[in-house]
Amino acid sequence: MRRPGRARKCRGQVAEGWWLLSWRGILTGIVFIRYASEALMAGCIFCRILSGEMPGTLVYRDEHCAAFMDIQPVNPGHVLVIPTRHAAQLADLDPESSVRLFPVAQRVAAALRASGLRCEGVNIFLADGAAAMQEVFHVHLHVFPRYRGDGFGLRFGPHYQEPPPRAELEEVATRIRAALGG
Amino acid sequence: MRRPGRARKCRGQVAEGWWLLSWRGILTGIVFIRYASEALMAGCIFCRILSGEMPGTLVYRDEHCAAFMDIQPVNPGHVLVIPTRHAAQLADLDPESSVRLFPVAQRVAAALRASGLRCEGVNIFLADGAAAMQEVFHVHLHVFPRYRGDGFGLRFGPHYQEPPPRAELEEVATRIRAALGG
Repeated sequence: MRRPGRARKCRGQVAEGWWLLSWRGILTGIVFIRYASEALMAGCIFCRILSGEMPGTLVYRDEHCAAFMDIQPVNPGHVLVIPTRHAAQLADLDPESSVRLFPVAQRVAAALRASGLRCEGVNIFLADGAAAMQEVFHVHLHVFPRYRGDGFGLRFGPHYQEPPPRAELEEVATRIRAALGG
Repeated sequence: MRRPGRARKCRGQVAEGWWLLSWRGILTGIVFIRYASEALMAGCIFCRILSGEMPGTLVYRDEHCAAFMDIQPVNPGHVLVIPTRHAAQLADLDPESSVRLFPVAQRVAAALRASGLRCEGVNIFLADGAAAMQEVFHVHLHVFPRYRGDGFGLRFGPHYQEPPPRAELEEVATRIRAALGG
């Protein structure tokens, strides 16, 4: 036997659920998502640079990508290449932007070499997630010139000098292949 | 008055020059370039992995790109994404491969996160030129999982902590814009 109070609560929940599936519910959802994403973008410093709301030194812009100077360069000429459409992380990056991003980085790398700036090589670096040192949550490729003795380098963990046996690589690869759906 | 010896030498140079522009000369040139590029590819360990001549642990391959395990991983799951067509450096990378490379790296990054391997974030890294730490001269994107306390990090030069004034960024940007042809 159900308690009357509980029955009323259940009916209320069902009614709320159906409301979400009604046209008014769906429209409210769309409006909410739109405002939420605009609120996220409004808080993004890269989106604010692109809109002109914050200062930025742009070197390139097209429909899908933009490139501007990093305010804390590894070396003079350090450029950030970003999608113009806000994407916090790689998982949020749409296919159109994904296709366009690297060719722009490649063009910027060629421009750095041709610019007359000190540039004997180029690094491209992307951080996806806080654990990978991402600080601004709008996908960006760092493209910066390198020269011998510039002081930039990579630090490795304690196990880096001990390459794993092939069997271990195969085991890891099996997991990655499965996740790739191949 | 010309010295006879000199005149003969000049005629010889002109004749050589014309020979290069003849059909036989052009065909010889094409054959030479083809063999030279095959010789370069034959010396490339990534091309030899793709051809099956050297061991490699592949996780992905399509017409334009391939991905295989780095034998000295930063962390377990470290993958290299490469164009299947040999390109020593970014300047040699054809537009078709350039467009395809990053979306594959993005897919690999998603697979690393879904694989069950320890992965709280992902870094993508490319070295173009010896001064930028390129060791194998076949374009490759390092894609590797990251987690807190893994020991990986970046080292910066002595001037990194002193961000330049905006005027300096603008000056550098002017050179890059000019090199971009914009």
